[in-house]
Amino acid sequence: MQRHDLRVDIDRLTARLDELGAVGSTGDGGCARLALTDDDRAGRDLVVTWMTDLGMDVSVDEIGNVVAVRAGSEDGPPVMCGSHIDTVATGGIYDGNLGVLGGLEVVETLESAGVVTKRPLAVAFFTDEEGSRFAPDMLGSLVYSGALSIEEALDVVATDGARLGDELGRIGYQGPTPCPGIAPYAYIELHIEQGPVLETHGETIGAVTGVQGISWQELTIQGQSNHAGTTPMSYRHDAGFVAASIAVRARELARRMGADQVATVGRLQLSPNLVNVVASKATFTVDLRNTVEKLLQYAEAELSRQVDEVCRSEGVSCSSRRLARFEPVEFDSRIVDLVERTASRLGHSTRRLPSGAGHDAQMLARMCPSGMVFVPSVGGISHNPKEFTSAEHLEAGANVLLGAMLELAESDVLHFDGECEAVAH
Amino acid sequence: MQRHDLRVDIDRLTARLDELGAVGSTGDGGCARLALTDDDRAGRDLVVTWMTDLGMDVSVDEIGNVVAVRAGSEDGPPVMCGSHIDTVATGGIYDGNLGVLGGLEVVETLESAGVVTKRPLAVAFFTDEEGSRFAPDMLGSLVYSGALSIEEALDVVATDGARLGDELGRIGYQGPTPCPGIAPYAYIELHIEQGPVLETHGETIGAVTGVQGISWQELTIQGQSNHAGTTPMSYRHDAGFVAASIAVRARELARRMGADQVATVGRLQLSPNLVNVVASKATFTVDLRNTVEKLLQYAEAELSRQVDEVCRSEGVSCSSRRLARFEPVEFDSRIVDLVERTASRLGHSTRRLPSGAGHDAQMLARMCPSGMVFVPSVGGISHNPKEFTSAEHLEAGANVLLGAMLELAESDVLHFDGECEAVAH
Repeated sequence: MQRHDLRVDIDRLTARLDELGAVGSTGDGGCARLALTDDDRAGRDLVVTWMTDLGMDVSVDEIGNVVAVRAGSEDGPPVMCGSHIDTVATGGIYDGNLGVLGGLEVVETLESAGVVTKRPLAVAFFTDEEGSRFAPDMLGSLVYSGALSIEEALDVVATDGARLGDELGRIGYQGPTPCPGIAPYAYIELHIEQGPVLETHGETIGAVTGVQGISWQELTIQGQSNHAGTTPMSYRHDAGFVAASIAVRARELARRMGADQVATVGRLQLSPNLVNVVASKATFTVDLRNTVEKLLQYAEAELSRQVDEVCRSEGVSCSSRRLARFEPVEFDSRIVDLVERTASRLGHSTRRLPSGAGHDAQMLARMCPSGMVFVPSVGGISHNPKEFTSAEHLEAGANVLLGAMLELAESDVLHFDGECEAVAH
Repeated sequence: MQRHDLRVDIDRLTARLDELGAVGSTGDGGCARLALTDDDRAGRDLVVTWMTDLGMDVSVDEIGNVVAVRAGSEDGPPVMCGSHIDTVATGGIYDGNLGVLGGLEVVETLESAGVVTKRPLAVAFFTDEEGSRFAPDMLGSLVYSGALSIEEALDVVATDGARLGDELGRIGYQGPTPCPGIAPYAYIELHIEQGPVLETHGETIGAVTGVQGISWQELTIQGQSNHAGTTPMSYRHDAGFVAASIAVRARELARRMGADQVATVGRLQLSPNLVNVVASKATFTVDLRNTVEKLLQYAEAELSRQVDEVCRSEGVSCSSRRLARFEPVEFDSRIVDLVERTASRLGHSTRRLPSGAGHDAQMLARMCPSGMVFVPSVGGISHNPKEFTSAEHLEAGANVLLGAMLELAESDVLHFDGECEAVAH
């Protein structure tokens, strides 16, 4: 059989997705494996067992990233694929998991066919990509790429008060491999789109051109608690009203800027949080994203101006804490071309598009040529138990991953200028 | 000594306020004795001890209201004063407590002077006035007045899931006296204003003309959780945004209506409440108050229209649950006159004003001629550890209560048409 004719086994892939999805199942088709919880450990143990069963060489690094390597006929940096297996509290079974289990499916397909590639292949899963429990998100790949020190990362404190380093030790995933990690030859990540673009246009494969920049901040408004009946409106210093106003203005800002600008207030807590007491304190997050750094900076500045305006008018104070900030990333055009070409060769419709979500691939892009393969999300729904991608699309994506990795693993078929070079974005 | 020359002992009153305030102290000058908690029980036990020490006849009714009676020279319904001793989670030490301990101070002043009134005097504290733990607020006096059945009240479920009847039994305050209670001859309640009006105008005593009507509802918005990065703004069904919009519109509505209309969103919960997930669900309360029933109804209808509008535009559903609804109450003009006259006789500046907060007196007003005495709140602050009223103003209020109760206790000095008559408001 020609290498070009190799195809993944979709039943094997969906069986693994279902089995991993059952770990931390929320009973409604969804999954909750927040980073470094007992459920995350159980998911990790399962995937590591599969890696070992495939004869791969598994290593765990200081921040808990797991990399499994399949030897090539020559030594050298591997062609790496991967993603993450942690989820948000109301996650689905595809987000992250597909990139990791799709990688294992590529390896098993090659094993079954007795194919040995020239370069080694690697399948990785990175710690705490979601950032739901520990901020910032993509923390594991951030440390892997050297952009965040291991010391700083281990001291991050969870929303539930736990220290990341302690939790890593507790679940047995603080490994000996040093960070930053070794730069792969190239990195390619298969992922569900998590948005509606491919489905809306009836296309199967997305050749991802880059990733939106992300700005996360937590704002704390300090007003004055008071009786909700006896305090005339003009005497109020209502932290809850200020938070609500900023949420509404963030929406208006995104609408006004249009295009790729999005803005979300997803977390909000009032204190004392009682029906008949004006809130003295409001703590909430603002998530801003744009594909263009200058526009993202404009959105940040404009929001900040509006926060000042509302706070001044209500007579409250505001403090802010940066939870995460990533500039937009452009993927290596050679990888984008390769994804598009491979998908076309396999007969799939394709579309170039940016990613609205952050992904580990944007961290790996600091180290080596990187890119991503998107498959459609039904209804654009993700971070939700209803998250779904059809078996047909999962199969198409995994076959594109297989084809692209095979081509990357043989340096003579690539258009790269010889060795891997660090690409700064 | 003439009865007219009797005065309360302010040091004794403030000592009792401080001692009761220490029960459930939050350590910052504030107090947390949520209804029917262990701290509420400790506060009740302390006040009952004081009542017994004063030789009063203490009874507990089926809903936990406590009434202590000091015999008069004649039998018949007592002149009652009182209030409540439960607090909000971030309460001060004056709200409610002053009306009860001011009543005990009146009794002790008469005891010390050896004065026996013609009619009996009663000091009461009513269960769950705040409504912070069990809705509706003023629950105890509502049952006392017969406007809510004891069966319904006992089945009310707390915000923490506990059943009111169970909690009442647990803390040992489900008494044998049947509800509704016996109608007093008259009812008068001393209370801090909890608003800024008296202080702003430099006046000492408020002769309260009535109580604002109260409308409490809990709204639940059901949208769709989704990824905060990949979901274009126009595809969103964001429950958090809808809640924020309604909070902002409630404020705008109150501003537009002006005068006595107030509107507050004090409690708000998002789900899943994560930085990078569009909220699928928002549960929040809206507190609307007005002194005029027709205007309160307008505010309710207008808010409802706006909720429909925002929900339709965002493509989310909304359900609402009524937590409390009380029509505005007008106090008996003879009691209002009496308070004003007594304050003037004692040399205090007075002002007629409505109450922005709900009070037990509005429930008692269903049974007998009722009214209230207000003293200033510094900065208008209440439901807050910083709640404060000066000793001078506490003393003035307690002396007005003493003078008014003495006059009410001798029917021949009153301008009532003989016997007490039920007054419907």
